[in-house]
Amino acid sequence: MLGIEAIASYIPKKRISNYDRKKKFGITDEFIKDKIGVERIAIKDDSEDTSDLCVSAYENLKKKFDINENEIEIIVVITQNPDYTLPQTSAILHGKLGLNTSCAAFDVSLGCSGFVYGVSIIQSFMNANGFKKGLLFTADPYSKIIDPDDKNTSLLFGDAAAVTVISDNPVFVADKFTFATAGKSYKDLICEDKVLYMNGRGIFNFVVKQIPDDIDRVIEKNGLIKDDIDVFLIHQASRIIVSTLTRKMNLPEEKVMYDMHDYGNTVSTSIPILFEKIIHDNKIKLALASGFGVGLSYASTVFRRV
Amino acid sequence: MLGIEAIASYIPKKRISNYDRKKKFGITDEFIKDKIGVERIAIKDDSEDTSDLCVSAYENLKKKFDINENEIEIIVVITQNPDYTLPQTSAILHGKLGLNTSCAAFDVSLGCSGFVYGVSIIQSFMNANGFKKGLLFTADPYSKIIDPDDKNTSLLFGDAAAVTVISDNPVFVADKFTFATAGKSYKDLICEDKVLYMNGRGIFNFVVKQIPDDIDRVIEKNGLIKDDIDVFLIHQASRIIVSTLTRKMNLPEEKVMYDMHDYGNTVSTSIPILFEKIIHDNKIKLALASGFGVGLSYASTVFRRV
Repeated sequence: MLGIEAIASYIPKKRISNYDRKKKFGITDEFIKDKIGVERIAIKDDSEDTSDLCVSAYENLKKKFDINENEIEIIVVITQNPDYTLPQTSAILHGKLGLNTSCAAFDVSLGCSGFVYGVSIIQSFMNANGFKKGLLFTADPYSKIIDPDDKNTSLLFGDAAAVTVISDNPVFVADKFTFATAGKSYKDLICEDKVLYMNGRGIFNFVVKQIPDDIDRVIEKNGLIKDDIDVFLIHQASRIIVSTLTRKMNLPEEKVMYDMHDYGNTVSTSIPILFEKIIHDNKIKLALASGFGVGLSYASTVFRRV
Repeated sequence: MLGIEAIASYIPKKRISNYDRKKKFGITDEFIKDKIGVERIAIKDDSEDTSDLCVSAYENLKKKFDINENEIEIIVVITQNPDYTLPQTSAILHGKLGLNTSCAAFDVSLGCSGFVYGVSIIQSFMNANGFKKGLLFTADPYSKIIDPDDKNTSLLFGDAAAVTVISDNPVFVADKFTFATAGKSYKDLICEDKVLYMNGRGIFNFVVKQIPDDIDRVIEKNGLIKDDIDVFLIHQASRIIVSTLTRKMNLPEEKVMYDMHDYGNTVSTSIPILFEKIIHDNKIKLALASGFGVGLSYASTVFRRV
């Protein structure tokens, strides 16, 4: 059975402090700490493109996990900020990593629901085609499209990438998934003419209305109850979104990870960054992951420790 | 078992004649007919975006195939020219078609190998998640990124879209696939600063070198010999590419479809346009499909009539 064997992330060292932007945006310490919950955003170097962030995540993987380029049968990159509109970033990455010609490669365009979707997409594709080892990359550097004067977005989003090893020697396997789309609200998060626009209020209302039901649904679909879940890997949209969901669903706070204060909302990379932190914590047997955002699109699943 | 139940395409009515551009580009009738093999390119209206081309393909589907929006559990859009870099075009399309919230939706970024990959991606995802009816869209309007003064690209590429119904009541089922990537050559077909660049010579050499082997490989992988194949649905890259492959592989000309002269190279839509023409031709039991291009990426499979 295929599942997640290892995860590594890359968060660029460079930071922009939100405390340094208090005056510019007329915001308070309380707003920074308790509302958005992002003290600093991580920001890539101008010379780094999306495929380079993926390469850096892969280099971090190799520091702790034994993998050989010749074993890799497929790579998938989840991004909406590719190096170029064409070719697909996965092809560029394929070249940079020196992978075999027989390695399959494609990009998936999804935002914050991308990691959860991506696990199902790559696993099912690998199963159907008899592959045993693949890499799922997430990398969506919003710094490429953010207007530094836009308070709604520039204080919130950070750059990062992650690589997740999918193999037949898994540590965690995904159980059943839920997937959903609210396409009529697509304008709430959109990039027109290379600039990101976010209707923060619209997104907040959507998340608070839809995600608790979706999480309930995926728990039920997997024959579980809420108390069975050891940790909730909820997309790190903002502090207020994570805490509102926690409260609304009556989740024990200590089971809901929160870890974006030092780098920001990293879109599809937020969940693998959390996952990397708990993958070797043997007390955690069941981890629920829920991603939501651009589209609007949302997806959840439960991962079981093997 | 899941497979292809129906296909419909949409080719915009508007054409630009290559004969009218003979003087501008210093080309001959022979070049138009025998080398590129494109007499006219199809071109979308300025008011039509990628999701609109998909809607038009879906409307053409509904004219001949009984489908209800409520049955659709997933849509996938293959494109590298989305409406916006984000959100994914599939979400916009989801809204325009009025699909259910529970319908999954994502885009895949691939070029001319996209249809073959796409069939495997959507089918395997559907199988893994218990879905019975999904729509695979291809739509890559290169008119959005073509420099009208570039002889290499503006005479060749046309706009179109197709929708392929994947269901548990298939007419054709895909057997085993091959997938391959030559990422180090990614610069041969690239869109920088919204303008497409193609190294025509590089692409030609790549195709002539790699694709015959790939087609041999997929035939062997499926336990067949070349003579078993009733029709070859080869990506319509250009007349010279299709005819060179035909000759190099000693394929009977009448088994190799050629049908781009009136609309051009429609990227990932070229194969479904061909497929739509033969899907109800009961003499055809085995159809080989091979797509290749942007990435560079290539993929092949064999479809068997049920």
